[in-house]
Amino acid sequence: MQLSEIYEPVKEDLVKVEEQFRLLVDSQHNTFPELHKMLSQILVGGKIIRPTLTLLAGKFYNYNLTNLLMMATASELLHIATLVHDDAVDKASVRRGQPTINEVWGVDKAVILGDYLFARAGEFAAATGNIRVVRLFAQTLESISRGELRQGFSAFSLEQTYDQYIERIAGKTASLFAMATESGAVLSQAPEEAGQGLKEYGYNLGIAFQIIDDILDFISTETEMGKPVGSDLAQGTITLPSLLLLEHYPEDNPIKRIFNNEGDGQKNIIEALELVRSSSIIEECYQAASNYSTKACRGLNLLPDNPSRQALLALADYVVKRRK
Amino acid sequence: MQLSEIYEPVKEDLVKVEEQFRLLVDSQHNTFPELHKMLSQILVGGKIIRPTLTLLAGKFYNYNLTNLLMMATASELLHIATLVHDDAVDKASVRRGQPTINEVWGVDKAVILGDYLFARAGEFAAATGNIRVVRLFAQTLESISRGELRQGFSAFSLEQTYDQYIERIAGKTASLFAMATESGAVLSQAPEEAGQGLKEYGYNLGIAFQIIDDILDFISTETEMGKPVGSDLAQGTITLPSLLLLEHYPEDNPIKRIFNNEGDGQKNIIEALELVRSSSIIEECYQAASNYSTKACRGLNLLPDNPSRQALLALADYVVKRRK
Repeated sequence: MQLSEIYEPVKEDLVKVEEQFRLLVDSQHNTFPELHKMLSQILVGGKIIRPTLTLLAGKFYNYNLTNLLMMATASELLHIATLVHDDAVDKASVRRGQPTINEVWGVDKAVILGDYLFARAGEFAAATGNIRVVRLFAQTLESISRGELRQGFSAFSLEQTYDQYIERIAGKTASLFAMATESGAVLSQAPEEAGQGLKEYGYNLGIAFQIIDDILDFISTETEMGKPVGSDLAQGTITLPSLLLLEHYPEDNPIKRIFNNEGDGQKNIIEALELVRSSSIIEECYQAASNYSTKACRGLNLLPDNPSRQALLALADYVVKRRK
Repeated sequence: MQLSEIYEPVKEDLVKVEEQFRLLVDSQHNTFPELHKMLSQILVGGKIIRPTLTLLAGKFYNYNLTNLLMMATASELLHIATLVHDDAVDKASVRRGQPTINEVWGVDKAVILGDYLFARAGEFAAATGNIRVVRLFAQTLESISRGELRQGFSAFSLEQTYDQYIERIAGKTASLFAMATESGAVLSQAPEEAGQGLKEYGYNLGIAFQIIDDILDFISTETEMGKPVGSDLAQGTITLPSLLLLEHYPEDNPIKRIFNNEGDGQKNIIEALELVRSSSIIEECYQAASNYSTKACRGLNLLPDNPSRQALLALADYVVKRRK
């Protein structure tokens, strides 16, 4: 199934979310042309999975559409803000096939633009008038930045475990997916258990999503991903494929050479990519992602069957099959 | 009057705010030692003016102390988060006499630590349970980052006016002072006009405070300030003293040489500092700050006379006389 088919039940709502983005961009046109340019570049072309999650999760019980739209917009803006900072920190030059903010305007502007986007995201969250989702929003940013800090402090360290990997991606990715679905549940007054199920759906989907992201960094192409392959290894970030590669080849291993700065870095990365691609590792990773996707779906057990539930189930399937 | 005397009416509350900081730092000790170290370094030694403003402004009407303490803590954390990012963006190496986060851990960690502090600040704001102050919090971060972006985009530009300078410092400094007092007013259910007065007090005090900061960058010493003098000019930032220097010496002017990258940069900065120090410019700047301080006090006209009001008046006086 295509993403556009899965998004069908909230298609019109997503148009309104994009309308919010356009308003945000356009409102800077006359007063601050440089900010207008930066926003125009960054607020287009994503998969908009997070706002879709908020909208779908919010459609089971008693919802107010305006509040859902505000929170859906907040979910995506929070995501984009973290991308801007990630790229600044990693000195990444390409994202979604476009030059990054730091590439065009420098790291300093990217840092402040990210802050600006956090602020705007927070304003959208606050516009729901719901203090619980605002608290959730702030806690999520805490989890994300903690996860990113963990990643930074463990860069180029070979002493990492599977559990630490899951903890890190839970912080940097799954927490935002969980916020997206939980906020939909809160805003639509979902019963406690159903809300918990939606939160768990988001969390497990986020883990699955990130595992696939980490696989794609090994097996995809720059054209498909819109950014260079092998960049995790270049940044010294251990992900599931590299964890397994270290496990399968405990002796001479290109990842050890990369992290210990031995030999030609680029050659070592290519060797690692090829080793992973030609082994059973990819399949093992897909299996791990698939387990989380199955777990995600279990979170939906208590929910009434409706087009939103069907879409969430289809999304869980899509996420572990995607190629970009 | 000393700051400690001015802070007298809220002395015990400030101890509780510092207790919140200590809890925040200590809670990382076992789970994330590197984060613990970073927080220990950054969460000490400030003037804590902003939480004092929230506490003093919140003591006129019907307040709940716990909520005031939460918001006071949020005000200071928001301030510290922006300092961490400012230093990262400016590549500053010293702050409050200590090495900056970016100096010790690198710009990448400083960016993410700043995000973490925004999150924690937001959680404290949300802990008030008051959606109005949460919205104010997010709007303030928007103003600050907009002001910082403006500053970044106008760096090394000689085409700047007094109004643009005021607009910039309103964004980057006065908005947070105004948030600090307005949130105190909101949380204590101040009548509309009294709340507006407290907000205006904060705003004008913030402008006065920043003008003095900008003066000190010309006339203070590194020991007194805890950071190098002349750093605004080194960053290409026009402040009130340099605006006036450009006005007084429209022809040959060291600032023009600095901004056009002519001659020895450090020599030009020293020449600019000396020209400002030996002219009437400093006095003119103090006069401008003093006018804003007077305006700030006018905002307190409608408020009942009590120790908080006396302290706010004394603070307005202190701010324009401070030497560090």
